[in-house]
Amino acid sequence: MTHVAIREVALRDGLQIEAPIPLSAKLELLEAVAATGVREVEATAFVSPSKVPSMADAAELAGHLGAYPDIEFSALVASAGGARRAVAAGLRSVEYVVAASDAFSKANVGRGSAEATQQIADVVAIAHDGGVTVEVIVATAWDCPFDGPTPPQRVLDIGAAARELGADRFSIADTIGTTTPGRVKSLVAQLCPVIGDMPLGAHFHNTRGAGLASAYAAVTAGITRLDASVGGLGGCPFAPGATGNIATEDLVYLLRDSGIDVDIDLRAAIVAAGVAKRVVGHDLPSAMLRAGDRIRT
Amino acid sequence: MTHVAIREVALRDGLQIEAPIPLSAKLELLEAVAATGVREVEATAFVSPSKVPSMADAAELAGHLGAYPDIEFSALVASAGGARRAVAAGLRSVEYVVAASDAFSKANVGRGSAEATQQIADVVAIAHDGGVTVEVIVATAWDCPFDGPTPPQRVLDIGAAARELGADRFSIADTIGTTTPGRVKSLVAQLCPVIGDMPLGAHFHNTRGAGLASAYAAVTAGITRLDASVGGLGGCPFAPGATGNIATEDLVYLLRDSGIDVDIDLRAAIVAAGVAKRVVGHDLPSAMLRAGDRIRT
Repeated sequence: MTHVAIREVALRDGLQIEAPIPLSAKLELLEAVAATGVREVEATAFVSPSKVPSMADAAELAGHLGAYPDIEFSALVASAGGARRAVAAGLRSVEYVVAASDAFSKANVGRGSAEATQQIADVVAIAHDGGVTVEVIVATAWDCPFDGPTPPQRVLDIGAAARELGADRFSIADTIGTTTPGRVKSLVAQLCPVIGDMPLGAHFHNTRGAGLASAYAAVTAGITRLDASVGGLGGCPFAPGATGNIATEDLVYLLRDSGIDVDIDLRAAIVAAGVAKRVVGHDLPSAMLRAGDRIRT
Repeated sequence: MTHVAIREVALRDGLQIEAPIPLSAKLELLEAVAATGVREVEATAFVSPSKVPSMADAAELAGHLGAYPDIEFSALVASAGGARRAVAAGLRSVEYVVAASDAFSKANVGRGSAEATQQIADVVAIAHDGGVTVEVIVATAWDCPFDGPTPPQRVLDIGAAARELGADRFSIADTIGTTTPGRVKSLVAQLCPVIGDMPLGAHFHNTRGAGLASAYAAVTAGITRLDASVGGLGGCPFAPGATGNIATEDLVYLLRDSGIDVDIDLRAAIVAAGVAKRVVGHDLPSAMLRAGDRIRT
């Protein structure tokens, strides 16, 4: 039976564009997330507090992660400086984001895609020096809100560079929620021979309704690591009112019912989605949350 | 390039559990639906007006369909009597529903699944006598809200009977929105050799978020006819607050972006979804409607 590892991203990608919530509320959400049995959690981001105020408490939050020894926590970084802070805060895994499109890269981190790709080397050096693993995540892997469709070759080039520069894992992200199963299968098929034995993950948003279909397509194409967020927490700043991340509980329901093994307890994930809804104070797009906890009948 | 025929069901399945709306509002929705370029439309149902008051104007609505000579209209029926009324009203295609589970069949039409299956013969006789085609739709093809999971053999038996009794088309419906890609591919693979050359369609609800993923899985398994509803109009009476039909515009976006040919104009479908939202007076679950009409960038 295929096993898919789901990484819970509610605490970072889910909360990133929300108004900052107190650390105590994050810890409550973390506790609910941990109760799902999830093995990987994206806990926070070491980025500019002025640009992303909701992640300003990254180091403080990191101080609480030791309470969950069975979970592998990661933090997102966008620069070598962020990687340094993450390592200093005790994280054992960092995600370094490289946007495949220049316009998004410049808007996001002030430098083009090629320059950001070269900095993988610095991030790897800092992380590995501290015994920390590095995942390279390609943002705008299919489409950019400014540059339009991303030529797949740009993603392949980042994949080759990540492998060459010593990254430990690789991941492709549908940042604005526009990709669909056909393009997912195509990109994964092109990418697999390029990245060698780096484990390959994927990150989808449900903005146009295709997120779960794309996630399933990724699994059929051979991907065994997927990001998801309880409740579907996490809007997209480029599509106001649109849904965000694929919901963990929707993904768990779909994969397990399709005969794919996942670690997460479905009912606990629905409970965690309810906690996410409460701590942010608004409705979330999760289908399972709306359908209630009745699984089948 | 694979072509998928999408049948628009907003006017029947979409409106069925809504409070009745005036015929003029239905005609406005029909006009918007016709403008999408759709070739097949489920227009109404000839069923008990006391049980389904929203479809009480079936014959009157049927009188307006001649204005759209390029669209093949169908009507749902649940009995030979309904088929007779549909034929008399001038419909050229009827859908006869047989629930695969006994409990749902009895709750819905007061007779068990086997008895409802045998009545395919009566419906076919009435319809073919009037030169009208018959599609047999299997309700609760994967799960029943009362009986739980439906043994696939029950669906295969109905498929064999439909073929034997002269039905023209066959379709499987995920009535309560519980199936997922893995079970869809499995059932389609088992069904194809049984139904012979009857065209096979499928009908999915997005109640647990897996509707579009299931629809795409159905296409990859060889299905070339799918139902959808503009706006995702159509709740499920068994899951209050849950989303209903897969949204036409979400399906069109997903299929076309995945390299599959569909007839429907995406922007016109989003406009029609807006009309649907207005005539029923509440929000609809369509992702494309929320994401706006920006397709890519």
